[in-house]
Amino acid sequence: MQLQFAKRMSDIKASEIREILKVTEQEDVISFAGGLPAPELFPIEEINEVNHIVLKEAGTKALQYTTTEGYVPLRDWIANRMNPRLSTSFDKDNILITHGSQQGLDLSGKVFLDEGDIVLCESPTYLAAISAFRTYGCKFIEIPTDEYGMDMTALENVLKKIKGIKLIYVIPTFQNPTGKTWNTEKRKKLAELSAKYNVAVIEDNPYGELRFEGEHLPSVKSFDTAGNVLCTGSFSKIFCPGFRIGWIAGDKDIIRKYVMVKQGTDLQCNTIAQMVISEYLKRYDIDEHIGKIVEVYKKRRDVAVECIERYFPQNIKFTHPEGGLFTWIELPEAISARDVLEKCLEQKVAFVPGGSFFPNENRENTFRINYSNMPEDGIIKGLKIIAEVIKVYMNK
Amino acid sequence: MQLQFAKRMSDIKASEIREILKVTEQEDVISFAGGLPAPELFPIEEINEVNHIVLKEAGTKALQYTTTEGYVPLRDWIANRMNPRLSTSFDKDNILITHGSQQGLDLSGKVFLDEGDIVLCESPTYLAAISAFRTYGCKFIEIPTDEYGMDMTALENVLKKIKGIKLIYVIPTFQNPTGKTWNTEKRKKLAELSAKYNVAVIEDNPYGELRFEGEHLPSVKSFDTAGNVLCTGSFSKIFCPGFRIGWIAGDKDIIRKYVMVKQGTDLQCNTIAQMVISEYLKRYDIDEHIGKIVEVYKKRRDVAVECIERYFPQNIKFTHPEGGLFTWIELPEAISARDVLEKCLEQKVAFVPGGSFFPNENRENTFRINYSNMPEDGIIKGLKIIAEVIKVYMNK
Repeated sequence: MQLQFAKRMSDIKASEIREILKVTEQEDVISFAGGLPAPELFPIEEINEVNHIVLKEAGTKALQYTTTEGYVPLRDWIANRMNPRLSTSFDKDNILITHGSQQGLDLSGKVFLDEGDIVLCESPTYLAAISAFRTYGCKFIEIPTDEYGMDMTALENVLKKIKGIKLIYVIPTFQNPTGKTWNTEKRKKLAELSAKYNVAVIEDNPYGELRFEGEHLPSVKSFDTAGNVLCTGSFSKIFCPGFRIGWIAGDKDIIRKYVMVKQGTDLQCNTIAQMVISEYLKRYDIDEHIGKIVEVYKKRRDVAVECIERYFPQNIKFTHPEGGLFTWIELPEAISARDVLEKCLEQKVAFVPGGSFFPNENRENTFRINYSNMPEDGIIKGLKIIAEVIKVYMNK
Repeated sequence: MQLQFAKRMSDIKASEIREILKVTEQEDVISFAGGLPAPELFPIEEINEVNHIVLKEAGTKALQYTTTEGYVPLRDWIANRMNPRLSTSFDKDNILITHGSQQGLDLSGKVFLDEGDIVLCESPTYLAAISAFRTYGCKFIEIPTDEYGMDMTALENVLKKIKGIKLIYVIPTFQNPTGKTWNTEKRKKLAELSAKYNVAVIEDNPYGELRFEGEHLPSVKSFDTAGNVLCTGSFSKIFCPGFRIGWIAGDKDIIRKYVMVKQGTDLQCNTIAQMVISEYLKRYDIDEHIGKIVEVYKKRRDVAVECIERYFPQNIKFTHPEGGLFTWIELPEAISARDVLEKCLEQKVAFVPGGSFFPNENRENTFRINYSNMPEDGIIKGLKIIAEVIKVYMNK
């Protein structure tokens, strides 16, 4: 006889990215697969220094339990950093420290979703957000999304037609997986619809600080008059992901609910990681550090885009991202990116097929390219190989 | 208009302990409230040293993303450590690193529980396990529990009567909150019933290494022939809690399910924390370190027990724990520990009333005393104050 598991287990499959990442742990693989930052930019020396300071000055505190809400100086810093960006007047009580911004999504599912609820999202959307929400028994309606963002007429039609929708999930800036960025008009409209139809919005923003060109755009939150928009953020892409420190920010009463569910979920985040980041932010200029990251990623984006333009067949669509970590390729409909991947893996090149980023449709002729994790020569070599494989399929 | 939240939110309340802990952050409070280890025993110097080594030798790896399963050398170490204790032949694939053993409980809820399911537990049981499981919409049946463990006849009666029970949650060694330890017979019987009725058992064991006297007893897992028993473990009580590193161990197919749900929950645990612990375990003798902890906690247990015997009224029951962090007080039924707490807080002494440790019954005449977190003079002073307050209530 078998043990009985929860019903949700029949819907949960292993994350395709996390599985491909295991393959790419071999050193000689050229991987466009993960959303991995460039490790050569991690401030290792500085982290070593602040680690030492934190342990010396407050070792017993750094290694002990702390509050679920998180380390106060770090929450203060985040509130101060967010306020000009979100047009808010947050203080620490608007901020919950989470185990990466991924935990912000899991806790959002816990706080908002009952079985059978519907989540509205971009099409495509971040695949681990799909997993996080699906765990709570929801279904997804994908709202058509173009290079300027979600189709607001389509969104309002769904909100009108289906009563009781609780949650809209969006990544308006340098979206994962497409690298696209919403225009200001759509951001404003989403906030208005959120107020009008009384729906919470999760504005996921792990990449927003990594803009290579153009002006920073106002957040959805900055147009939020109803207090319905919650924003995630993360140190993973501007500092390092190994610490697993992110946050969720929003209305105090709602954040209080997140705190309560986090208590039963994992008590609190890593104490010393919070203190080390906080100490780093006190001693070093994070904007200078972000500047270095942006400079390197911009070059890599340039090389990637140039290679795609030069080597890929002409009738292939792709994003020219203004920031972030990803571009997105659309092949002719008859070609499956999973087949292309299989052939590429034989030549030790990896990426993530796009199918998993669609909760319902599975558009298999798409794939995601991460350009942040590899030196330029690797990008060139890898994209040439992918181009050759695609050409074989196009000539079939 | 208000946003709509998940139904579960109406059942979730703030953890009483985490709330009391906030009060006790004032320096002059004598707190028996948290399950906090003694911070003066944290190996700060050693952690600083291995932090430095890890960052120097493998900094880019330590600060980058890693696999959901966790750092392989640490999983190997845990498997090797567990095998003689659990009578298992585990390897790394039987082990998932979790964000503290608390996350093992949350993930257990995700893997096993649907709305309306019934969880069987000791009476009383660990209050954050109640929160973790309740999130998934379960109900609890408390099985009567005495100083030798759960009543196995009562347990079998429930298993016979109610079909489809999926989960039994127990803390057989130095239980939280009571400090009690199950005898071998009951451990064996639980494993047998788990096989007979095809129910998973979560054997939560964060304190088992901290035995002050007597023989280590075989785990429930060691009698598990069906592969139905999952064991949690933690570095929080034998190393430090600030890193938030624990594990869940069990049958490989079941652990694989835990890995899949962890992917959507928070991707992975803190990379550098796993590597630092692993490096520490390579360079230092953890048993020697545990020996130091046991020596200090045993003295504190002795002082606490002596104070209770000397200062508390005669007709009060309490546990004489053979290890771990807690003792448990039962007042006459008419006295509410919440009232006692209120008066004690006025004199800056804190503890956790027992009511919250009962998922259904709320036996308010009980409370939990943690003796690990305070020097002996504080224990004496604090317990004298509690004794005086209790006497006032007994003479009313």
